Amino acid sequence: MPDSDAKGDDSGAVLDLASRLRSEHHQSLKLWQRMLSCTVRIENEIRARLRATFGITLPRFDMMAQLNREPRGLKMSELSRRLMVTGGNVTGLTDQLVAEGLVVRRATPGDRRAYNVRLTPKGKRQFDAMAQEHEQWITDLLSGMQRDERDALYESLDRLKSTLVTCLPSATDASA
Amino acid sequence: MPDSDAKGDDSGAVLDLASRLRSEHHQSLKLWQRMLSCTVRIENEIRARLRATFGITLPRFDMMAQLNREPRGLKMSELSRRLMVTGGNVTGLTDQLVAEGLVVRRATPGDRRAYNVRLTPKGKRQFDAMAQEHEQWITDLLSGMQRDERDALYESLDRLKSTLVTCLPSATDASA
Repeated sequence: MPDSDAKGDDSGAVLDLASRLRSEHHQSLKLWQRMLSCTVRIENEIRARLRATFGITLPRFDMMAQLNREPRGLKMSELSRRLMVTGGNVTGLTDQLVAEGLVVRRATPGDRRAYNVRLTPKGKRQFDAMAQEHEQWITDLLSGMQRDERDALYESLDRLKSTLVTCLPSATDASA
Repeated sequence: MPDSDAKGDDSGAVLDLASRLRSEHHQSLKLWQRMLSCTVRIENEIRARLRATFGITLPRFDMMAQLNREPRGLKMSELSRRLMVTGGNVTGLTDQLVAEGLVVRRATPGDRRAYNVRLTPKGKRQFDAMAQEHEQWITDLLSGMQRDERDALYESLDRLKSTLVTCLPSATDASA
């Protein structure tokens, strides 16, 4: 919708404001749909490659990635919070990974109801191998853009993230 | 990691290439993590507001949004394909919406195994009311950015989308 020019009378100014608001809504919605669409395309491709190459699910990869960042492990509650990304069932995932010797789950000293989960050396090795491949996939998927185009996108997203931290303060977390 | 300067001998050139590749990997991974993080923050906020305001799930909203774009309805198989976004169980969602009179499901003429689903007038009215609110939420969540910042982000994402269509041709779809 074209921006209407400023008018000399009040009704023109009101129309102009309404038109600008509609235009802003339209722009924001298009932007969000484009961002969601790009993210989902990449995520679905990664999900398919993880399954085909390593036989694992995306929630499982994401959980091991979170644990890999914290050599001393994470409380189950913190792990659940961080894994809102994929909505994986943390308890079920942990049970599987414990059975395969990839993570250990231990009671937290001083808090018998809280469990701490961390990667075993075997889990760390398995994750490192997958992470290397994952990084290559991401590099390939983004390689259609020039380096300066990727820089520009990163800077825009950085700006968006800083405004989201302000308007959604509860959403701050330790992830990128 | 700082870019290393070009070297005069072969070992320097090899090191330089390796360093540039590592730097590109690092940049791409950071970019992807930032994009995923921004998308998930907004998506989780929208999910929470849909539940609090309208008592509905995000997959249900997404399904009604897809049907709203197609007044003549969609085949179940096409609906499933488009809803990879949220992984909603299309059959279960359709059963619920039929029971509430918000969609109708009819056999496709000439293909008894294929069902067509479309919004009822009641479903359309309910979706329109939710969509108006949803658009306002998106506008508010992105309002921390200036208009030209949003334009820049949209242009970057547009560029990304066009490169993804090339490297993931199977991912082309009718969505934004």
